[in-house]
Amino acid sequence: MEENPAFEKEIVEIDRLIRLVSLIVRKRGRDILGNFDITPPQFNALLALADFGSLTMGELCEKLYLACSTATDLIDRMERNGLIERQRDQNDRRVIRLKITERGQGIIEKVIEARYVYLTNVLASVTAEEKRSIVCALNQLHSLMTQDMAKQ
Amino acid sequence: MEENPAFEKEIVEIDRLIRLVSLIVRKRGRDILGNFDITPPQFNALLALADFGSLTMGELCEKLYLACSTATDLIDRMERNGLIERQRDQNDRRVIRLKITERGQGIIEKVIEARYVYLTNVLASVTAEEKRSIVCALNQLHSLMTQDMAKQ
Repeated sequence: MEENPAFEKEIVEIDRLIRLVSLIVRKRGRDILGNFDITPPQFNALLALADFGSLTMGELCEKLYLACSTATDLIDRMERNGLIERQRDQNDRRVIRLKITERGQGIIEKVIEARYVYLTNVLASVTAEEKRSIVCALNQLHSLMTQDMAKQ
Repeated sequence: MEENPAFEKEIVEIDRLIRLVSLIVRKRGRDILGNFDITPPQFNALLALADFGSLTMGELCEKLYLACSTATDLIDRMERNGLIERQRDQNDRRVIRLKITERGQGIIEKVIEARYVYLTNVLASVTAEEKRSIVCALNQLHSLMTQDMAKQ
């Protein structure tokens, strides 16, 4: 596709590269998850629950940038599959909290390990300093995007 | 989630950050596409056709890392919506090539522009040199991941 000459080249490149990297990471991610019988949205939900301990439905939707209508189906299916459980909050029994089960925790650890092995292979020829530069660049992108999301 | 002490910190961070950046980019991407009445897989297919001129079904599946069974439905829907068209190859009439229509091209240009405006806002505080570092890091990641995909 022809480039629009009014556009700053670096921004166009960053957009294109994020899109292409995401496409590959999602393909590889799907391959890995296929071995564990969970879907990408289920993996993201499990990760958020593993990271934050327990979350209410509203908090989980916010972390995953999902509409709560979409997330309810997802959570029901995950509860039926024994990946998470609903528990009443100990301080306020009206509040339902979502928690990852032992089975969910076991699966997520295996998925993270498989992703780690994949990325270690991909980055085998990269020096320690280059890896730190990649972390820096991604950190900057992530922190600016998160700030922008919070403004909405 | 607790970190596995046997894992190299940078690799774990790169995996986590790519995942988080993808999540935000996809959410923002969905918001933008919502205004143009196309889905993320349709956008990726249109982009590939805009980039490569015309592609056979097999070539398109390869570019999108999709199973051809999934892509057939996608392509049928896009043809019905006037985003792409099927044409016989001029050199070999047995071969069907997919081409983006004028309407598809118009939509993709508007989507790219909206993504550009979004990313320009996000990166407003970033210096030219930092932007070049981000491009470098993403380029390195993308080229290593593409090489790895080609090995499969």
